[in-house]
Parts: sequence; C-alpha cells; structure tokens
Amino acid sequence: MKAELISVGTELTAGITVDTNAAWLAERLGTLGVAAVRHVTLADDRQAVAEELRSASVGSSPPEVIVVTGGLGPTDDDLTREALADAMGVPLRTEPAVLEHLGEFFRRRGYPWSESNARQALFPEGAAPLENAWGTAPGIRAVIGDTVVYCLPGVPREMREMFARFVLPEIEARGAAAVIVARTLSCYGAGESSIAEQIADLMVAGRAVTVGTTANESVISIRFLARAANRAEADALIDRDLAEVRTRLGKLVFGADDETLESVVAKLLRQQRRTVSTAESCTGGLLAKRLTDIPGSSEFFLRGLVTYSNQAKIDLLGVEPRLIEQHGAVSGEVAEAMAIGCRQRAGSDFALASTGIAGPTGGSLEKPVGLVYVARAEADGCEVRRLTLGGHLSRDSIRQRGASAALNLLRLRLLGYSVTPGS
Amino acid sequence: MKAELISVGTELTAGITVDTNAAWLAERLGTLGVAAVRHVTLADDRQAVAEELRSASVGSSPPEVIVVTGGLGPTDDDLTREALADAMGVPLRTEPAVLEHLGEFFRRRGYPWSESNARQALFPEGAAPLENAWGTAPGIRAVIGDTVVYCLPGVPREMREMFARFVLPEIEARGAAAVIVARTLSCYGAGESSIAEQIADLMVAGRAVTVGTTANESVISIRFLARAANRAEADALIDRDLAEVRTRLGKLVFGADDETLESVVAKLLRQQRRTVSTAESCTGGLLAKRLTDIPGSSEFFLRGLVTYSNQAKIDLLGVEPRLIEQHGAVSGEVAEAMAIGCRQRAGSDFALASTGIAGPTGGSLEKPVGLVYVARAEADGCEVRRLTLGGHLSRDSIRQRGASAALNLLRLRLLGYSVTPGS
Repeated sequence: MKAELISVGTELTAGITVDTNAAWLAERLGTLGVAAVRHVTLADDRQAVAEELRSASVGSSPPEVIVVTGGLGPTDDDLTREALADAMGVPLRTEPAVLEHLGEFFRRRGYPWSESNARQALFPEGAAPLENAWGTAPGIRAVIGDTVVYCLPGVPREMREMFARFVLPEIEARGAAAVIVARTLSCYGAGESSIAEQIADLMVAGRAVTVGTTANESVISIRFLARAANRAEADALIDRDLAEVRTRLGKLVFGADDETLESVVAKLLRQQRRTVSTAESCTGGLLAKRLTDIPGSSEFFLRGLVTYSNQAKIDLLGVEPRLIEQHGAVSGEVAEAMAIGCRQRAGSDFALASTGIAGPTGGSLEKPVGLVYVARAEADGCEVRRLTLGGHLSRDSIRQRGASAALNLLRLRLLGYSVTPGS
Repeated sequence: MKAELISVGTELTAGITVDTNAAWLAERLGTLGVAAVRHVTLADDRQAVAEELRSASVGSSPPEVIVVTGGLGPTDDDLTREALADAMGVPLRTEPAVLEHLGEFFRRRGYPWSESNARQALFPEGAAPLENAWGTAPGIRAVIGDTVVYCLPGVPREMREMFARFVLPEIEARGAAAVIVARTLSCYGAGESSIAEQIADLMVAGRAVTVGTTANESVISIRFLARAANRAEADALIDRDLAEVRTRLGKLVFGADDETLESVVAKLLRQQRRTVSTAESCTGGLLAKRLTDIPGSSEFFLRGLVTYSNQAKIDLLGVEPRLIEQHGAVSGEVAEAMAIGCRQRAGSDFALASTGIAGPTGGSLEKPVGLVYVARAEADGCEVRRLTLGGHLSRDSIRQRGASAALNLLRLRLLGYSVTPGS
C-alpha cells in the first residue's frame, strides 16, 4: 500500500513553520506497512490543492490513501474543503448535525459565535465528517477513484488523535501487505564512522532489515527497519539484529528507542539506590537540568552547584585557591577537586563535575575552545577525562557533549566497567 | 517569481528524518521575493523524481526556479543525477575536471578511493557542476524549458553554503519583482488571544504587511512579512508596524528577531553592571543553563544552586526548617527565603529562585502539578509570583515556563517597571 501526504498552509511554504505532521504520519503509516512515498506541501491555494488531489488520484498507480493536513479552520484562507470538492467535481453542502454541534460547542464555552464558523459545517457532497474531539474543525473522509482521502486539521494534537481514531483502524482493517517495525539503539563513546565500520555487513542494501546510523551531539543512533508479512516475523528479524549489534558494540550501546543517557543513568541509580550531585562550570546547569528532566529525580539527585566564578568554586566546593592559580580553572586538577568537594559536602554517593571553555571566545593556544574536563568522584577515588571537542562546534554543542561525557562516566561506573581512555 | 522545492530521500518520506532544508530555502527565497509555493518530498526513486521535475517544468505556469536537495552522494540510492538526466532527456557524461578534483580530495585526506565515488563526477549533458567546498558531492545547475534547476546536497551545511554562493546571486541578478522582509517581535506576559486582540486591526488580510502570531511555551511571537518593490520600501512598511505594536503592547514586548528572554536579561545586566545568582528547585538547573547559554555570561552570572532536597535548601541557602515544615517546600514563603538566602551568600545584586511541582506525579488537590513559585530578591526586597500552569502541560513545559517567569521578573525590574499581578 502507498500513501501521499499533502500539507496545506502558506506558513509552511513560506518557511515560517517547519512541517512535522508529514514525518509523524509517514512513520505511523510505515509501521502499518503503508509507504508514504510522496509528501507535498502547498500554500493556502484552492486551485493548487485541487490540482494535486486530482493528479495524485488519477495517475497510473494512484496511492490507496491520501492524508491532507491543514486548511480546515473557519477563516477565509482555509480552503481544503473547497479544493476537495473541486477535485471530486461536486458542490459543498452544509451538514446540519455538524452545524448544530458547532453551535453547541460555542454556547457551552460562552464563546461568541461568528458566521464564518458555519464554514466548518460544509462538506463535499458524498464526503463524511470526522469528529474532532479537541477542536472545532471536523475532518473529512472522501473517495476519489480508488483513493481514500482523509482531511485532518493541521494542529498536531488534533491531527494525531483523529488519525488514531479514524485512519488507523481503517488501514488495519484493509490488511496491509507488509508490516514494518522500527527500532533504535543509541551509542556513546565512538564516532559514527567507527560504529558503522563495526556493523558494515548489516548495513548493506538488500537485507530484510534496513540498518542506518545518524549522529547527534556525539550520540550515535542505529536505526533498524524490518519489513515482513506480519508483526511477529518482523519482530523476530529485528530482535536478531539488535542482539547481534549489542554483542558487537558492548558498552558503547547505552539504550534503545526513547532512552537517553540521563534516563539510563537515572534507572541505574534508582536500581542501585545511589545518589548523585553535580558541580558545573562550563555546562552551567545543563547537567543538573538533564538529570532533573527525569520525573522523580529527587530520589537520586541531591543537589547541583553551578560554580561559574572562581570564588564560587572556592566557597561552595572547597577548591583550594592555589590549585586554580597553579593549573587554571580549566584543568583536570580543578575538575577533580570540584567533584570531590561536591560529593563530600552533598553527602551523595557520586558527584559529577565539569570545567571547560564553551566559547565562542575565551580560548587560547594552550587551552582552546572545546577543551573540557569532566570528573566523577566516589568514596574511594575520582576519575577525570579530558575532552578536546574542537573549536568548530557551537557553544551549545560543546556544553551538550560535555554533559554527555560526564553522564557516560557515571553510566560506565554503575555498570561496573572500568573506564579506560577511548571508552 | 515562483519556486518549487524538491527534497529527495527515503529517510524523509519514511519519517525518520524531518526535512528542515525546505523551510530554510523557502524563507531565504521569500526574502528574495521568490514564493516557494510547492514543496515535494520524494523517496530515493529515480522515476518519481524525474516525473516531478518534468511535470513541474512543463505545466501551464512553471516555476522560474526548482531547487532539489539530496540524492547527490556516491551510493547506489543517490539518484538525483540520473533523474535529472531523464527529465532533460539527455545522457550522463563524466566531467574530467570534477573527477580529478574528487581524486585529489581523497588523496589529500588519505581516504581510500572507492570506484563508486566516480559517480559524483557524472552530469547530464548540458548541465554545469557547482563546486561543494565542504563535501565531496558537487551540485548541478541545469535548465529545463524556462526553469532553472539547482541540485544541492542534502547536508544542511553544504546546501546552505552552496545556495549562498550559486543560487542567491543568480536570483538577485534576475531582479525579483518584489522584495519580502520578515521581522519578529517576541512578547511575554499575556496569552496569544489577548495579544492578537490588541493588534487585530493589523492582522486582517489585504494589508501590505502580513501579521500573524504563534505561541511557544508562553512566549508569543508576532511575525511581520512586508512585500514591496524594493528593500527600502519594505523596511519602511515594516518599521511602521513594529513601532505601532511596540507602543500598543509596551512592556509585553521583550525583544525582536532572535532575541530571547535570557539574551535580553543578559544585555540589561551587562549594561547596568549588575550580577545575578540562581536558586532552583523545580527548574532543576534550567534557569542557570539558560543564563549561561549566553556567551560571556561569567560577567554577570555568579553562581547557581540546584537545591532539590529540603536539606540542600537548608544547607546551601539558609532556608529555615520551620518555614518548610509550616508552608511546605512548594510555597511562596520558601521561594522568597531561597532567593534572599541565595543573594546574600552569593553577594550578587539579584537572585532568582523557583520552587514548584513539575510533575507528572507529586501533585495534590491543594498543590497541583503546574503550581510554581518564582522569586526575585534584591538588596531592598523580594518579589514573589505564583503561577498555576495547569497539569495538562508536560514536565518540560512547566520547567521552561517557570524559568521564563523568573527571567521576566528580572527583566521588568531591570527596565524599571514595577511588577504588578498580570504583568
């Protein structure tokens, strides 16, 4: 089965808003075995939308499904209804039940009724309304030739809910020819090319599972797409690949699907009933922010200190002034002292520290932008890592990567790995 | 002038990657007076890409420009070259100069040469290569009928650089019929509908400046698009609207274009040579993170304390235990004590504090998820605000909005406004 996605809105064609609906729909349809091979974004232009609907549904191999998002609201530039009627070659007519429902929606909320709202009760002859539980604009289901056309609102929350309620069951009932299952493994500790090399034989074309890598701020994601006749078969194919990659990459793999470095660290801390505190210079609160992104983080996160000034490092962490004088605030020695001092004062099992030069200015030949030290202290020792992240990176990238390196130091320790250079 | 954008890649049609190139190109073209009225995303499918190029360039009113991104790499599924040749009805031939350049690129870097790289030196007869300064895949410039087709790599950095070097000058030289200038004002302190009401007369259709609003985590952006015959005229139109909206909305407007609450607060702190420190409970480091996102923040940011546990609030901020017992950690009294204690110990001019329930659990009837107190202390007093953000919001939204409320408290103070409820 094939689908075409049409996103309608001048804010999209003008580049003011990035369309996320099409990617979301494509992924959902993909897991149902429907390939969304063509996405088209059009301005609020009745003729252009009608033309696209017409040409898509009459081609030599028309898609079984077209999903249109946007252009269903009450204003003059919402023209999806009209375009659909043009493409079907039928007039619009008012659906009295929908009109009544709209009127009640406004009365109940005490909103003033404006006549333009009545436009939302117009439907092409022969098309059916789809109820919108979250907003006023109903959707439309219509048939052109052999293609079923679903028109959904552009508001993501409304669109997603209506997709689940109206589109998904109908596609499932039609019984797709293939099921696609998607999974992800996330890795930290090696570059994308090194990881791709280690799984190169799985990444060749023509296998039943398509394997690809993407990199985002030093986290490498390995994406698996399995296509099979049914769910169980697709799951079996993909599970075999997941197990193989986990074996090959070992501790480089930190999680699957939606897991993040911080969610994995949080899970391990909870399981082991351990606590952590943070002392940050260059990451400036980001490390604490990422750890407290996790609901219930008060169970394992005791406190975070953003010691940006030297005085704060001395006052709050007990870093000795002569250490800063001798080695500079950006040094392995100071990172270590920050972590040790933080742990002692917080009374936590672990402490993580960061100090570095996030840029864009403040670097020198000896200590360039992108130099970051991270440290992990525990009762019987402290481990420090020196990162040279490269001055071509943005301030935000350097901070994100510094925080990830610190989280990974803790992850490896909680997993019982000894941390060696390059790990 | 009109343009069509074609994005090529199965990772895009499958929804694995969200295409940001089209929106970027649409906005750039828009400022040159070129309306990108149609964006099409296609899988790595030679026939589909060729068909789209053909039908787009032979229609009744073909676009003057087509920009294709993606599908120019060395692998078997990179088929933009072939599709373009099909659409032009010409064969591919090797460009010797490009082949030589590619070989040298690999030799210089010590990369192993693979024969598939030679595909990148293939061009449709009559088409011209466009040099790629950042990667190996050259672009292509071709003409079909009255349409100029530019094929650029899908890697955003390479695409943007080549757009600036090859596409932009040619469009400017052709002299667009109109220039579009885009500007944004950002507001905090009122809802989108309330702001839209105050500028409703500017938001009607048919004006020379198109005005629209969007909301993101309680920051309301007002977008202005002016179309005129030349830059000076467009600037004059838009400046008049900007001034009018600033007058009407007053202190609700905190910045323009790329400015954020934190960048505006940073600018004001620097101008006034004042310093700030932070004491965070529910925002968990986010407030410190946002302030230290600003390069050079060590000038005004002294320290940040993430006091997640009650003990940390007592130890690090001097909050009295009986205050927590009496009012609870989430209370105006504790927010105030946190801010005052933080400021005194840090020796900063101001301190900002937050305490609240970010959820998704931990709420009660009396103190529901979304209840957040923020406070701003200075030498002669402390101001506290109570926010009820609503339990329907995500943890991340509640934390972002809490941090923004604290930043806005400081912004208004630095501007000399007295802070009153609802401001």
